[in-house]
Amino acid sequence: MDKAGRLEKGDASKVPVPVGANRGISIIDLILRLVGIAGTLSAAIAMGTNEQTLPFFTRFVQFSAEYDDFRSFRLFVVVNAILAAYFVLTIPLSIVHIMRSAARGSRILLIILDTIMLALLTAGASAAASIVYLAHNGNSSTNWLPVCQQYGDFCQMASGSLIGSFGGIVMLILTILLGAIALSRQARRVL
Amino acid sequence: MDKAGRLEKGDASKVPVPVGANRGISIIDLILRLVGIAGTLSAAIAMGTNEQTLPFFTRFVQFSAEYDDFRSFRLFVVVNAILAAYFVLTIPLSIVHIMRSAARGSRILLIILDTIMLALLTAGASAAASIVYLAHNGNSSTNWLPVCQQYGDFCQMASGSLIGSFGGIVMLILTILLGAIALSRQARRVL
Repeated sequence: MDKAGRLEKGDASKVPVPVGANRGISIIDLILRLVGIAGTLSAAIAMGTNEQTLPFFTRFVQFSAEYDDFRSFRLFVVVNAILAAYFVLTIPLSIVHIMRSAARGSRILLIILDTIMLALLTAGASAAASIVYLAHNGNSSTNWLPVCQQYGDFCQMASGSLIGSFGGIVMLILTILLGAIALSRQARRVL
Repeated sequence: MDKAGRLEKGDASKVPVPVGANRGISIIDLILRLVGIAGTLSAAIAMGTNEQTLPFFTRFVQFSAEYDDFRSFRLFVVVNAILAAYFVLTIPLSIVHIMRSAARGSRILLIILDTIMLALLTAGASAAASIVYLAHNGNSSTNWLPVCQQYGDFCQMASGSLIGSFGGIVMLILTILLGAIALSRQARRVL
Protein backbone atom coordinates (compact mmCIF):
# COMPACT_ATOMS: atom_id res chain seq x y z
CA MET A 1 0.00 0.00 0.00
CA ASP A 2 2.79 2.36 1.00
CA LYS A 3 4.67 1.55 -2.18
CA ALA A 4 1.62 1.98 -4.40
CA GLY A 5 1.02 5.38 -2.84
CA ARG A 6 4.56 6.47 -3.59
CA LEU A 7 4.23 5.27 -7.15
CA GLU A 8 1.09 7.27 -7.80
CA LYS A 9 2.50 10.42 -6.30
CA GLY A 10 5.76 10.10 -8.27
CA ASP A 11 4.07 9.61 -11.60
CA ALA A 12 1.32 12.18 -11.24
CA SER A 13 3.89 14.93 -11.65
CA LYS A 14 4.84 13.66 -15.10
CA VAL A 15 3.31 15.06 -18.25
CA PRO A 16 0.48 12.77 -19.39
CA VAL A 17 1.07 11.02 -22.70
CA PRO A 18 -1.59 11.78 -25.33
CA VAL A 19 -3.98 8.93 -26.12
CA GLY A 20 -2.85 8.64 -29.74
CA ALA A 21 0.85 8.20 -28.93
CA ASN A 22 0.86 4.40 -28.96
CA ARG A 23 -1.15 4.38 -32.19
CA GLY A 24 1.64 6.36 -33.85
CA ILE A 25 4.19 3.86 -32.55
CA SER A 26 2.12 0.98 -33.94
CA ILE A 27 1.91 2.61 -37.37
CA ILE A 28 5.70 3.05 -37.44
CA ASP A 29 6.00 -0.58 -36.33
CA LEU A 30 3.86 -1.67 -39.30
CA ILE A 31 5.98 0.34 -41.75
CA LEU A 32 9.20 -1.12 -40.30
CA ARG A 33 7.84 -4.63 -40.80
CA LEU A 34 6.95 -3.89 -44.43
CA VAL A 35 10.50 -2.63 -45.02
CA GLY A 36 11.77 -5.75 -43.25
CA ILE A 37 9.82 -7.98 -45.67
CA ALA A 38 11.36 -6.20 -48.64
CA GLY A 39 14.88 -6.47 -47.23
CA THR A 40 14.88 -10.10 -46.13
CA LEU A 41 12.91 -11.37 -49.12
CA SER A 42 15.21 -9.67 -51.63
CA ALA A 43 18.23 -10.98 -49.69
CA ALA A 44 16.88 -14.54 -49.81
CA ILE A 45 16.09 -14.34 -53.52
CA ALA A 46 19.37 -12.66 -54.45
CA MET A 47 21.42 -15.25 -52.58
CA GLY A 48 19.20 -18.19 -53.54
CA THR A 49 19.59 -17.54 -57.26
CA ASN A 50 23.29 -16.81 -56.97
CA GLU A 51 25.48 -19.02 -59.12
CA GLN A 52 28.27 -18.52 -61.58
CA THR A 53 29.92 -20.88 -64.03
CA LEU A 54 33.33 -19.93 -65.27
CA PRO A 55 33.75 -19.67 -69.08
CA PHE A 56 36.73 -22.06 -69.16
CA PHE A 57 36.93 -25.73 -68.24
CA THR A 58 39.32 -28.64 -68.22
CA ARG A 59 38.49 -32.05 -69.62
CA PHE A 60 37.14 -33.21 -66.25
CA VAL A 61 35.99 -30.15 -64.43
CA GLN A 62 33.71 -27.24 -65.23
CA PHE A 63 34.36 -24.65 -62.54
CA SER A 64 31.26 -23.25 -60.98
CA ALA A 65 30.11 -21.77 -57.69
CA GLU A 66 26.64 -21.52 -56.28
CA TYR A 67 25.27 -20.53 -52.92
CA ASP A 68 24.47 -24.17 -52.15
CA ASP A 69 28.18 -25.01 -51.95
CA PHE A 70 28.53 -22.95 -48.78
CA ARG A 71 26.71 -24.00 -45.64
CA SER A 72 26.74 -20.42 -44.38
CA PHE A 73 25.07 -19.18 -47.57
CA ARG A 74 22.47 -21.92 -47.38
CA LEU A 75 21.77 -20.92 -43.78
CA PHE A 76 21.55 -17.33 -44.96
CA VAL A 77 18.86 -18.13 -47.54
CA VAL A 78 16.83 -20.23 -45.10
CA VAL A 79 17.03 -17.65 -42.31
CA ASN A 80 16.07 -14.76 -44.59
CA ALA A 81 13.12 -16.71 -45.98
CA ILE A 82 11.99 -17.51 -42.42
CA LEU A 83 12.30 -13.87 -41.45
CA ALA A 84 10.34 -12.66 -44.47
CA ALA A 85 7.56 -15.11 -43.56
CA TYR A 86 7.75 -14.01 -39.92
CA PHE A 87 7.36 -10.35 -40.89
CA VAL A 88 4.33 -11.22 -43.03
CA LEU A 89 2.75 -13.21 -40.20
CA THR A 90 3.23 -10.43 -37.64
CA ILE A 91 1.62 -7.76 -39.81
CA PRO A 92 -1.93 -8.66 -38.70
CA LEU A 93 -0.78 -8.36 -35.08
CA SER A 94 0.74 -5.00 -35.86
CA ILE A 95 -2.56 -3.84 -37.39
CA VAL A 96 -4.41 -5.04 -34.29
CA HIS A 97 -2.08 -2.87 -32.21
CA ILE A 98 -2.95 0.17 -34.32
CA MET A 99 -6.65 -0.38 -33.66
CA ARG A 100 -6.37 -1.51 -30.04
CA SER A 101 -3.49 0.48 -28.67
CA ALA A 102 -4.16 -0.80 -25.14
CA ALA A 103 -3.16 -4.36 -26.08
CA ARG A 104 -0.44 -5.58 -23.77
CA GLY A 105 -0.11 -9.36 -23.84
CA SER A 106 0.30 -9.41 -27.60
CA ARG A 107 2.93 -6.65 -27.41
CA ILE A 108 5.02 -8.72 -25.00
CA LEU A 109 4.61 -11.75 -27.26
CA LEU A 110 5.80 -9.68 -30.21
CA ILE A 111 8.87 -8.41 -28.30
CA ILE A 112 9.77 -11.98 -27.34
CA LEU A 113 9.39 -13.28 -30.90
CA ASP A 114 11.21 -10.27 -32.35
CA THR A 115 14.13 -10.87 -30.01
CA ILE A 116 14.45 -14.53 -30.98
CA MET A 117 14.18 -13.64 -34.67
CA LEU A 118 16.79 -10.90 -34.24
CA ALA A 119 19.27 -13.45 -32.89
CA LEU A 120 18.44 -15.83 -35.75
CA LEU A 121 18.78 -13.24 -38.51
CA THR A 122 21.97 -11.73 -37.09
CA ALA A 123 23.50 -15.20 -36.90
CA GLY A 124 22.66 -15.98 -40.53
CA ALA A 125 23.74 -12.61 -41.88
CA SER A 126 27.08 -12.46 -40.11
CA ALA A 127 27.97 -16.08 -40.87
CA ALA A 128 27.45 -15.26 -44.55
CA ALA A 129 29.34 -11.98 -44.16
CA SER A 130 32.40 -13.73 -42.77
CA ILE A 131 32.46 -16.09 -45.78
CA VAL A 132 32.05 -13.16 -48.17
CA TYR A 133 34.97 -11.49 -46.43
CA LEU A 134 37.08 -14.63 -46.83
CA ALA A 135 36.14 -14.89 -50.50
CA HIS A 136 37.27 -11.31 -51.05
CA ASN A 137 40.48 -11.41 -49.02
CA GLY A 138 41.44 -15.03 -48.50
CA ASN A 139 43.58 -16.14 -45.58
CA SER A 140 47.29 -16.73 -45.85
CA SER A 141 47.91 -18.86 -42.78
CA THR A 142 45.42 -21.51 -43.89
CA ASN A 143 46.23 -21.03 -47.58
CA TRP A 144 42.64 -20.15 -48.48
CA LEU A 145 42.91 -18.10 -51.65
CA PRO A 146 40.59 -15.20 -52.44
CA VAL A 147 38.18 -16.55 -55.03
CA CYS A 148 36.45 -13.30 -55.94
CA GLN A 149 38.98 -12.73 -58.70
CA GLN A 150 37.57 -15.76 -60.49
CA TYR A 151 33.99 -15.62 -59.28
CA GLY A 152 33.46 -11.88 -59.56
CA ASP A 153 29.72 -11.84 -60.23
CA PHE A 154 29.09 -14.45 -57.60
CA CYS A 155 30.89 -12.40 -54.98
CA GLN A 156 29.16 -9.20 -55.94
CA MET A 157 25.74 -10.80 -55.70
CA ALA A 158 26.58 -12.36 -52.33
CA SER A 159 27.85 -9.04 -50.97
CA GLY A 160 24.77 -7.24 -52.25
CA SER A 161 22.35 -9.67 -50.66
CA LEU A 162 23.94 -8.99 -47.26
CA ILE A 163 22.60 -5.43 -47.43
CA GLY A 164 18.96 -6.53 -47.41
CA SER A 165 19.62 -8.84 -44.51
CA PHE A 166 21.35 -6.22 -42.38
CA GLY A 167 18.47 -3.89 -43.21
CA GLY A 168 16.16 -6.50 -41.71
CA ILE A 169 18.30 -6.58 -38.55
CA VAL A 170 17.96 -2.83 -38.11
CA MET A 171 14.17 -3.07 -38.59
CA LEU A 172 13.93 -5.77 -35.91
CA ILE A 173 15.99 -3.77 -33.41
CA LEU A 174 13.71 -0.77 -33.98
CA THR A 175 10.51 -2.80 -33.58
CA ILE A 176 11.77 -4.22 -30.27
CA LEU A 177 12.60 -0.73 -29.01
CA LEU A 178 9.22 0.64 -30.12
CA GLY A 179 7.46 -2.28 -28.44
CA ALA A 180 9.25 -1.62 -25.15
CA ILE A 181 8.44 2.09 -25.34
CA ALA A 182 4.78 1.37 -26.10
CA LEU A 183 4.56 -1.00 -23.14
CA SER A 184 6.02 1.55 -20.75
CA ARG A 185 3.74 4.30 -22.04
CA GLN A 186 0.73 2.16 -21.32
CA ALA A 187 1.80 1.96 -17.71
CA ARG A 188 2.10 5.73 -17.61
CA ARG A 189 -1.16 6.42 -19.38
CA VAL A 190 -3.19 4.22 -17.10
CA LEU A 191 -2.11 6.38 -14.18
CA MET B 1 -12.43 8.38 -21.04
CA ASP B 2 -14.45 5.61 -22.61
CA LYS B 3 -11.30 3.69 -23.45
CA ALA B 4 -9.79 4.19 -20.02
CA GLY B 5 -12.99 2.89 -18.45
CA ARG B 6 -12.88 -0.22 -20.62
CA LEU B 7 -9.26 -0.75 -19.72
CA GLU B 8 -9.89 -0.66 -16.01
CA LYS B 9 -12.85 -2.98 -16.23
CA GLY B 10 -10.95 -5.43 -18.43
CA ASP B 11 -7.93 -5.64 -16.20
CA ALA B 12 -9.72 -5.65 -12.87
CA SER B 13 -10.83 -9.21 -13.58
CA LYS B 14 -7.22 -10.39 -13.77
CA VAL B 15 -5.46 -11.90 -10.79
CA PRO B 16 -3.35 -9.19 -9.13
CA VAL B 17 0.39 -9.79 -9.30
CA PRO B 18 2.07 -9.97 -5.88
CA VAL B 19 4.25 -6.99 -4.97
CA GLY B 20 7.44 -9.06 -4.78
CA ALA B 21 7.10 -10.53 -8.29
CA ASN B 22 9.29 -7.97 -10.03
CA ARG B 23 11.91 -8.31 -7.32
CA GLY B 24 12.19 -12.01 -8.13
CA ILE B 25 12.58 -11.19 -11.81
CA SER B 26 15.34 -8.69 -11.00
CA ILE B 27 17.22 -11.26 -8.93
CA ILE B 28 17.07 -13.76 -11.80
CA ASP B 29 18.23 -10.95 -14.10
CA LEU B 30 21.27 -10.37 -11.87
CA ILE B 31 22.15 -14.08 -11.87
CA LEU B 32 21.84 -14.25 -15.67
CA ARG B 33 24.23 -11.32 -16.02
CA LEU B 34 26.79 -12.99 -13.75
CA VAL B 35 26.59 -16.15 -15.89
CA GLY B 36 26.93 -13.93 -18.96
CA ILE B 37 30.16 -12.43 -17.59
CA ALA B 38 31.60 -15.90 -17.05
CA GLY B 39 30.63 -17.07 -20.53
CA THR B 40 31.80 -14.11 -22.60
CA LEU B 41 34.96 -13.50 -20.56
CA SER B 42 36.08 -17.12 -20.84
CA ALA B 43 35.25 -17.06 -24.57
CA ALA B 44 37.38 -13.94 -25.08
CA ILE B 45 40.31 -15.36 -23.10
CA ALA B 46 40.13 -18.79 -24.74
CA MET B 47 40.08 -17.34 -28.25
CA GLY B 48 42.51 -14.53 -27.47
CA THR B 49 45.21 -16.89 -26.26
CA ASN B 50 44.60 -19.36 -29.06
CA GLU B 51 47.62 -20.10 -31.18
CA GLN B 52 49.39 -23.17 -32.43
CA THR B 53 52.77 -23.65 -34.09
CA LEU B 54 53.27 -26.83 -36.05
CA PRO B 55 56.25 -29.00 -35.03
CA PHE B 56 57.72 -29.13 -38.56
CA PHE B 57 59.03 -26.33 -40.75
CA THR B 58 60.72 -25.71 -44.07
CA ARG B 59 63.80 -23.58 -44.51
CA PHE B 60 61.66 -20.46 -45.07
CA VAL B 61 58.40 -21.01 -43.30
CA GLN B 62 57.40 -22.04 -39.81
CA PHE B 63 53.73 -22.97 -40.00
CA SER B 64 51.60 -21.41 -37.31
CA ALA B 65 48.07 -20.21 -36.75
CA GLU B 66 46.74 -17.77 -34.24
CA TYR B 67 43.40 -16.09 -33.76
CA ASP B 68 44.84 -12.81 -35.04
CA ASP B 69 45.18 -14.28 -38.57
CA PHE B 70 41.40 -14.39 -38.92
CA ARG B 71 39.43 -11.19 -38.95
CA SER B 72 36.36 -13.04 -37.72
CA PHE B 73 38.24 -14.41 -34.72
CA ARG B 74 39.63 -10.99 -33.92
CA LEU B 75 36.09 -9.59 -34.06
CA PHE B 76 35.01 -12.46 -31.82
CA VAL B 77 37.57 -11.58 -29.12
CA VAL B 78 36.75 -7.87 -29.23
CA VAL B 79 32.99 -8.44 -29.12
CA ASN B 80 33.20 -10.90 -26.24
CA ALA B 81 35.43 -8.55 -24.26
CA ILE B 82 32.96 -5.71 -24.88
CA LEU B 83 30.07 -7.90 -23.76
CA ALA B 84 31.86 -9.01 -20.58
CA ALA B 85 32.47 -5.33 -19.74
CA TYR B 86 28.85 -4.51 -20.57
CA PHE B 87 27.56 -7.23 -18.26
CA VAL B 88 29.78 -5.90 -15.45
CA LEU B 89 28.58 -2.33 -16.01
CA THR B 90 24.90 -3.30 -15.97
CA ILE B 91 25.13 -5.20 -12.68
CA PRO B 92 24.70 -2.04 -10.55
CA LEU B 93 21.57 -1.23 -12.55
CA SER B 94 20.30 -4.75 -11.98
CA ILE B 95 20.87 -4.37 -8.23
CA VAL B 96 18.99 -1.05 -8.29
CA HIS B 97 16.07 -2.90 -9.90
CA ILE B 98 16.06 -5.43 -7.07
CA MET B 99 15.79 -2.65 -4.50
CA ARG B 100 13.47 -0.35 -6.45
CA SER B 101 11.23 -2.73 -8.35
CA ALA B 102 9.04 0.17 -9.56
CA ALA B 103 11.86 1.59 -11.72
CA ARG B 104 10.67 1.92 -15.30
CA GLY B 105 12.91 4.27 -17.31
CA SER B 106 16.03 2.33 -16.40
CA ARG B 107 14.33 -0.95 -17.35
CA ILE B 108 13.55 0.37 -20.82
CA LEU B 109 17.12 1.62 -21.13
CA LEU B 110 18.37 -1.82 -20.17
CA ILE B 111 16.12 -3.56 -22.74
CA ILE B 112 17.37 -1.22 -25.46
CA LEU B 113 21.04 -1.75 -24.56
CA ASP B 114 20.54 -5.51 -24.19
CA THR B 115 18.98 -5.69 -27.64
CA ILE B 116 21.87 -3.84 -29.29
CA MET B 117 24.40 -5.99 -27.43
CA LEU B 118 22.50 -9.13 -28.45
CA ALA B 119 22.87 -8.20 -32.12
CA LEU B 120 26.57 -7.42 -31.59
CA LEU B 121 27.37 -10.66 -29.76
CA THR B 122 25.37 -12.85 -32.15
CA ALA B 123 27.20 -11.28 -35.09
CA GLY B 124 30.61 -11.94 -33.55
CA ALA B 125 29.80 -15.47 -32.43
CA SER B 126 28.29 -16.67 -35.71
CA ALA B 127 30.98 -15.06 -37.86
CA ALA B 128 33.54 -17.03 -35.84
CA ALA B 129 31.35 -20.15 -35.99
CA SER B 130 31.24 -20.07 -39.79
CA ILE B 131 35.06 -19.90 -39.93
CA VAL B 132 35.35 -22.76 -37.45
CA TYR B 133 32.98 -24.75 -39.63
CA LEU B 134 35.12 -24.02 -42.71
CA ALA B 135 38.27 -25.00 -40.85
CA HIS B 136 36.69 -28.32 -39.93
CA ASN B 137 35.13 -29.13 -43.29
CA GLY B 138 36.77 -26.99 -45.94
CA ASN B 139 35.01 -26.10 -49.17
CA SER B 140 35.61 -27.96 -52.40
CA SER B 141 34.30 -25.43 -54.93
CA THR B 142 36.71 -22.74 -53.75
CA ASN B 143 39.46 -25.25 -52.95
CA TRP B 144 39.68 -24.20 -49.32
CA LEU B 145 41.10 -27.23 -47.53
CA PRO B 146 40.07 -28.24 -44.01
CA VAL B 147 42.95 -27.13 -41.79
CA CYS B 148 41.84 -28.77 -38.56
CA GLN B 149 43.80 -31.89 -39.45
CA GLN B 150 46.99 -29.86 -39.11
CA TYR B 151 45.88 -27.34 -36.53
CA GLY B 152 43.98 -29.71 -34.26
CA ASP B 153 44.50 -27.91 -30.95
CA PHE B 154 43.81 -24.54 -32.52
CA CYS B 155 40.50 -25.76 -33.91
CA GLN B 156 39.47 -27.40 -30.67
CA MET B 157 40.16 -24.24 -28.68
CA ALA B 158 38.26 -22.10 -31.21
CA SER B 159 35.27 -24.45 -31.15
CA GLY B 160 35.27 -24.49 -27.36
CA SER B 161 35.33 -20.73 -27.04
CA LEU B 162 32.16 -20.53 -29.14
CA ILE B 163 30.26 -22.25 -26.33
CA GLY B 164 30.85 -19.43 -23.86
CA SER B 165 29.80 -16.88 -26.42
CA PHE B 166 26.57 -18.66 -27.33
CA GLY B 167 25.90 -18.99 -23.61
CA GLY B 168 26.14 -15.21 -23.41
CA ILE B 169 23.60 -14.91 -26.25
CA VAL B 170 21.09 -17.05 -24.37
CA MET B 171 21.59 -14.97 -21.23
CA LEU B 172 20.93 -11.75 -23.16
CA ILE B 173 17.75 -13.12 -24.75
CA LEU B 174 16.49 -14.12 -21.30
CA THR B 175 17.29 -10.73 -19.75
CA ILE B 176 15.38 -8.96 -22.54
CA LEU B 177 12.36 -11.20 -22.01
CA LEU B 178 12.46 -10.74 -18.24
CA GLY B 179 12.73 -6.97 -18.71
CA ALA B 180 9.67 -6.91 -20.96
CA ILE B 181 7.70 -9.06 -18.52
CA ALA B 182 8.69 -6.85 -15.58
CA LEU B 183 7.60 -3.73 -17.51
CA SER B 184 4.21 -5.16 -18.34
CA ARG B 185 3.66 -6.37 -14.76
CA GLN B 186 4.24 -2.84 -13.52
CA ALA B 187 1.40 -1.67 -15.74
CA ARG B 188 -0.84 -4.36 -14.32
CA ARG B 189 0.12 -3.73 -10.71
CA VAL B 190 -0.55 -0.02 -10.92
CA LEU B 191 -4.11 -0.77 -11.98
